[in-house]
Amino acid sequence: MIKQYLLAPGPTPIPNEVALAMAETMIHHRTPQFAKIFLEVRDGLRELFATKNDVIVLASSGTGAMEAAVTNLLSPGEKVLVVNGGKFGERWLEISKAFGLDPIDLKVEWGKPVAVEAIEQKLKEHRDVQAVMVQASETSTTTWHPIDKIARVTKGGPLLIVDGVTAVGVKKVPMDEWGVDAFVTGSQKAMMLPPGLGFVALSDRAWARAAQAKLPKFYFNLNLERKNQQKGASAFTPAVSLVFGLRASLELMRKEGLDRVYARHERLASATRAAATALGMKLLAPESPSPAATGIWTPPGMDADAMLDFFREKMLITFAEGQDQLRGKAIRIAHVGYMGAFDVVTAIAALEMGLRKFGAEVKFGQGVAAAQEVLMETLV
Amino acid sequence: MIKQYLLAPGPTPIPNEVALAMAETMIHHRTPQFAKIFLEVRDGLRELFATKNDVIVLASSGTGAMEAAVTNLLSPGEKVLVVNGGKFGERWLEISKAFGLDPIDLKVEWGKPVAVEAIEQKLKEHRDVQAVMVQASETSTTTWHPIDKIARVTKGGPLLIVDGVTAVGVKKVPMDEWGVDAFVTGSQKAMMLPPGLGFVALSDRAWARAAQAKLPKFYFNLNLERKNQQKGASAFTPAVSLVFGLRASLELMRKEGLDRVYARHERLASATRAAATALGMKLLAPESPSPAATGIWTPPGMDADAMLDFFREKMLITFAEGQDQLRGKAIRIAHVGYMGAFDVVTAIAALEMGLRKFGAEVKFGQGVAAAQEVLMETLV
Repeated sequence: MIKQYLLAPGPTPIPNEVALAMAETMIHHRTPQFAKIFLEVRDGLRELFATKNDVIVLASSGTGAMEAAVTNLLSPGEKVLVVNGGKFGERWLEISKAFGLDPIDLKVEWGKPVAVEAIEQKLKEHRDVQAVMVQASETSTTTWHPIDKIARVTKGGPLLIVDGVTAVGVKKVPMDEWGVDAFVTGSQKAMMLPPGLGFVALSDRAWARAAQAKLPKFYFNLNLERKNQQKGASAFTPAVSLVFGLRASLELMRKEGLDRVYARHERLASATRAAATALGMKLLAPESPSPAATGIWTPPGMDADAMLDFFREKMLITFAEGQDQLRGKAIRIAHVGYMGAFDVVTAIAALEMGLRKFGAEVKFGQGVAAAQEVLMETLV
Repeated sequence: MIKQYLLAPGPTPIPNEVALAMAETMIHHRTPQFAKIFLEVRDGLRELFATKNDVIVLASSGTGAMEAAVTNLLSPGEKVLVVNGGKFGERWLEISKAFGLDPIDLKVEWGKPVAVEAIEQKLKEHRDVQAVMVQASETSTTTWHPIDKIARVTKGGPLLIVDGVTAVGVKKVPMDEWGVDAFVTGSQKAMMLPPGLGFVALSDRAWARAAQAKLPKFYFNLNLERKNQQKGASAFTPAVSLVFGLRASLELMRKEGLDRVYARHERLASATRAAATALGMKLLAPESPSPAATGIWTPPGMDADAMLDFFREKMLITFAEGQDQLRGKAIRIAHVGYMGAFDVVTAIAALEMGLRKFGAEVKFGQGVAAAQEVLMETLV
């Protein structure tokens, strides 16, 4: 029992091609060699973000990129509307408060997508809102918020700042076409990299705002970064090996084709949802599930955290736990990144075994069969 | 669909710990640093082979090690008895012929273990047989031959030369205790390494014979190797990075514990057999199956090779094919090496999907459930 299965939504497994690229000979970052790689990566990122604008690469986690989006677009005391439907919605709120903004906390029931009407209503009540902050994929509840519809509401109004940490490369979000103003992600999700890179792409009007925004920043100065990155450098030392890996992972995604990357995530997620349903389990986000991960309520009275320990210790499988109000009540199975059809099969077979171990009546193979049906129907 | 699943009996998947060890800085082989590593590895190999004698490491495939066992123990024209129950039994025959020995071809029905009485009978008919050659695990038919019983017959008589390519590290074969005279393996099986290393361990009486054996050899001179390897060197340039990897893989096996390594192989194999049986399929070797891999007959009229193409192309799973008389009629699912419980689940779920794709009536999850039952009963 030495083989580990990593099925949590980030860090995700790393393809060997990417790991090998990261082991390439270290080079200095202020060199033509690095500039060439960096400029190549920038092209790939624009494709991935579906934007004609710059995608800024930061040596930070995704949270750093979230902070950068906030501090580069807003000024002290400005009012913002935060869609708060999970741990990452809360994070927008915390960042806003830390920098002295005036956030409106639009609470959304965990597991539900935000109602666009609720956003419209808040914006009517508060005409001075400068930005709406939301997750595309709220990883903590595995919910997908309707970014396309929200973008229609913010068009010509407040900026739309979207956390795309488990959305970019997972599901199509054409930021220019829809009108997303800031789109943020991290490296350890669909990009199949270790953590350590943050990304922010801004729209034209967001770049215009960035020239005036007065919140304090130094490390995360996107204008400064843009000037440098357009020349293949970065303002501060970049995470060189991760950029090597990024080039490899963008190449893998390009080869697979972005549409097929999105279809792959959807395929694994829908097979998992079918399996959970066949096992009589309830989904955390039945109404608008994210394809990045599937959250499942464990049966009443069954301790999800004890199950997770069992999975990790006895089956060497790492799923993700439920956080805060979901603690001990749910597990989350990831599909994001370097995952294949048989990771779903693995996850569901393990889940069945865990359920029985913890006292549920389970017919082995029942969930797996439901997953297999979906996987067969969606064979490429 | 970019994630590959390698489920063939060698090359097998490589643990990252081993891959990383092989990426260590290259060193010269005639140095104290290399000698230290090599001597450490020799200790681990003695444990793995359960012998007090030397285990010789060769830069060759397993076939090279088979040849070394033959050319170092026998002289031109000598009579040998070859247990020929598959592709690898045939290989003993071919090596014997290539070097001018006089082999008796003891044919065994593919998928059956050799009858010890048949060996006894042949040895009575041919009192001048100098060696018996046999596979412990005949990988082509996934059959286990009863080495312990054969060793009782050869005790004090002809040498017992055993191909342990998919046996060493898979199932306990205590060579000194049982009286195996030559035990051979390769790196790309239970040792979880890439191909490139061959191994031969000899008994005391085999080493005595090696001093007199007259078959021609140069590269595979085990006496010369022994003199060198006892000092931490080798007669010819060793495969340095594979030796680095070998140190890591021996360490992994030591940590897991050899008894648990054996139990792991048996667990995966028995779960696979239970699954195949639950699906109404016939095993290639029901009587004495090897825990290294499980051969399964595909249903009559179903082209196993077309199925294997489907698995490889549409599911990115590599199983092994049936060879020669089994061509197109069977598939083999490996358990040897760096495999876990969920590789069985993956294999069986894929098999179910392949069977349906090729026209069989299959209830999805039925085989998986049978595997799950065994895996649950055998949780460590």
